[in-house]
Amino acid sequence: MASRRPPFRLFAQCTSRNQFSGFPFLNANWSSRRALSRFPCSGTSSEASTRLNYLGWAVAGLLVAVPLTYKMAIDEPLKLDIPTLAERDQQLKSEQGVSELSPMRLRMEKFAKEQQRAIVRALEEVDGTKFRVDEWQRKEGGGGITCVLQDGKVFEKAGVGVSVVYGTLPKPAILKMRANHKNIADESNIPDSLEFFAAGISLIVHPKNPMAPTVHLNYRYFETANPDGSPGAWWFGGGCDLTPCYLFDEDAIQFHKSLKEVCDKHDKDYYPRFKKWCDQYFYNKHRGESRGIGGIFFDDLDESVSDRENLFAFVQDALESFVPTYVSIVNKRKDMSFTEKEKEWQQIRRGKYVEFNLVHDRGTAFGLNTPGARVESILMSLPLTASWRYMHEPEPKSREARLVEVLQNPKEWV
Amino acid sequence: MASRRPPFRLFAQCTSRNQFSGFPFLNANWSSRRALSRFPCSGTSSEASTRLNYLGWAVAGLLVAVPLTYKMAIDEPLKLDIPTLAERDQQLKSEQGVSELSPMRLRMEKFAKEQQRAIVRALEEVDGTKFRVDEWQRKEGGGGITCVLQDGKVFEKAGVGVSVVYGTLPKPAILKMRANHKNIADESNIPDSLEFFAAGISLIVHPKNPMAPTVHLNYRYFETANPDGSPGAWWFGGGCDLTPCYLFDEDAIQFHKSLKEVCDKHDKDYYPRFKKWCDQYFYNKHRGESRGIGGIFFDDLDESVSDRENLFAFVQDALESFVPTYVSIVNKRKDMSFTEKEKEWQQIRRGKYVEFNLVHDRGTAFGLNTPGARVESILMSLPLTASWRYMHEPEPKSREARLVEVLQNPKEWV
Repeated sequence: MASRRPPFRLFAQCTSRNQFSGFPFLNANWSSRRALSRFPCSGTSSEASTRLNYLGWAVAGLLVAVPLTYKMAIDEPLKLDIPTLAERDQQLKSEQGVSELSPMRLRMEKFAKEQQRAIVRALEEVDGTKFRVDEWQRKEGGGGITCVLQDGKVFEKAGVGVSVVYGTLPKPAILKMRANHKNIADESNIPDSLEFFAAGISLIVHPKNPMAPTVHLNYRYFETANPDGSPGAWWFGGGCDLTPCYLFDEDAIQFHKSLKEVCDKHDKDYYPRFKKWCDQYFYNKHRGESRGIGGIFFDDLDESVSDRENLFAFVQDALESFVPTYVSIVNKRKDMSFTEKEKEWQQIRRGKYVEFNLVHDRGTAFGLNTPGARVESILMSLPLTASWRYMHEPEPKSREARLVEVLQNPKEWV
Repeated sequence: MASRRPPFRLFAQCTSRNQFSGFPFLNANWSSRRALSRFPCSGTSSEASTRLNYLGWAVAGLLVAVPLTYKMAIDEPLKLDIPTLAERDQQLKSEQGVSELSPMRLRMEKFAKEQQRAIVRALEEVDGTKFRVDEWQRKEGGGGITCVLQDGKVFEKAGVGVSVVYGTLPKPAILKMRANHKNIADESNIPDSLEFFAAGISLIVHPKNPMAPTVHLNYRYFETANPDGSPGAWWFGGGCDLTPCYLFDEDAIQFHKSLKEVCDKHDKDYYPRFKKWCDQYFYNKHRGESRGIGGIFFDDLDESVSDRENLFAFVQDALESFVPTYVSIVNKRKDMSFTEKEKEWQQIRRGKYVEFNLVHDRGTAFGLNTPGARVESILMSLPLTASWRYMHEPEPKSREARLVEVLQNPKEWV
């Protein structure tokens, strides 16, 4: 592997731009280059640390930035001939393929891509329109596939993205992550950097018919590599939540029931815990209401919760339960009649969806503030159209008012 | 004055909610109550300090938060009989009215309200539709007037707001502001709190016709009171910028020329300095382009720049120049023919306007994150409708492409 990469002058790779790969909900920072933080430049810590304040919730929206400077220019070019995690994985894949014996990184990537294809196929069948598919390879390893169906017959916009990111965590990020994952590094021996892997699938579907609900889903896996190349810390995150403009209790119940069944199969504590987490995360604070009627949300699921195989099985079941549940709901709603006023209400709710995504969603906001991020992959989550009407209030006791009431006081649906 | 307010138990006023009044571009935190930070509760500094990190640019988007706790409950109720700045100003106004001899606070408030009426009248004349007018009084002093014209004949949405806020700065805010305004307090004697006053006018107009440009304006005045009631630090901020969807060079030139003339009348350095500042501030970083074709933007204009009378005269001239310039531009464009595709382009540009306001505008973002803010006054800045199309690119050499090119490389128009 190493022989394939010629030695190069490190200073030639040092620029003032942030060089970290990002992996929030729906996006990957494809154009950024892997930072050579094995040789960290001075002056990086405080800025990286400031940026890390945005993270807080740890790995789900992993986006760390290390502006490298020219200061590290040295006279003798250094040879970097240890194969990177990305190179090792690439070699593994090409030599052995991906099986149940492969590292979780490769299994999660494979599963996410299979599910992406399955979901795209299922939504295409509902809509009768094909998705546009944009694929990349990152030269450092990993890659992304963004599939978007826009202005279809049933869907206003549907985006299904898979991203695989290999990158390097600088010390401040490692220290931050240690809060939730002690085994990322020994306290007495925090390395200057660690290689990491992140892979996930994200989806948002905005149907045209105001009676059919918007849905969002994201499942992801994160892993670090120790300096000697051995596996370090790992965890899963994800969830799925529903955002109706008109509330059909039976849909809400069906959606939550499906998620509860998946959760209960693995751990009876999951559903109540992840349902609450979801209500807390998708809270449009400045509006004093939830984005939608919730679902499940979780992060940092590691060996303190269950073993890796069990957690992967849980994530697989959760992801696989999406299509039957959502397609069933959307098929019930997609051909319902609606008035112009109901369409207008949908547009106003869309506006609030935009507000949540741009103001409160930590992954989106941080991604957009990261130079070099693939903005179109991040913002495929936004609806095709949205509206803001000053002081718009639903009429008392209307269906619109009932929705707002439920958004203000999240319900237990099952 | 003092006799009008009965003594009360301090602990009865202490809640865990943020109790600070806000004053970003377009909003005022009307529902918040004046914090009694004369007696600061312990444990407030670090949180307030974290929030203050969002400010950075100091006073323009002044929104500080001090969560008070019950910890300060004391056995003997304290009498607070020193009249507040708001009470003193109220008394001054009712006894003497507002003249050129009045404090700048009252003159700025009066001028902002006069200009609001003048602008509303002028826009109503262009559109043929009346504005909706919402007015409040804050019981601690000050108040707000929000005027919105929505879905008119010429304007999709036009909002003109005036806000007057009296509040109290906690120590971390004072320390932060000292970076730009040393005379806010002696270094050797920083008070635990300072009363402040802020007043300003803000406006955003989104016309229906894609050939007519969106415009934004904000002028504001800030002042602190020393603990003995004497005037402390003061400064002006503001600016005005244009956001066309289709670029007419003559409009851009007319707009900038008008601002340059106003600036040059007061100081030949103003226009180049404030034009550059505007390009820097209204930069939609994640898109790599400016929000519009700029104008002027300034902040912290205090005695280090010019005396107060001169700066007020400058702000007055700048504000008064708005109507003739913008009405002239909009009258040229409002009845031009346009295609469906051109309307769609406008909607896509609107989407980017929303992105700037929700992601990058420090006042908006911080306002929305402040409990109790009047959200509808903040978000009257958003267009009635906006659109996001995945991977939308203007055709090479089209008018749309020319606009993007100029947004990516701000021009000198005069």
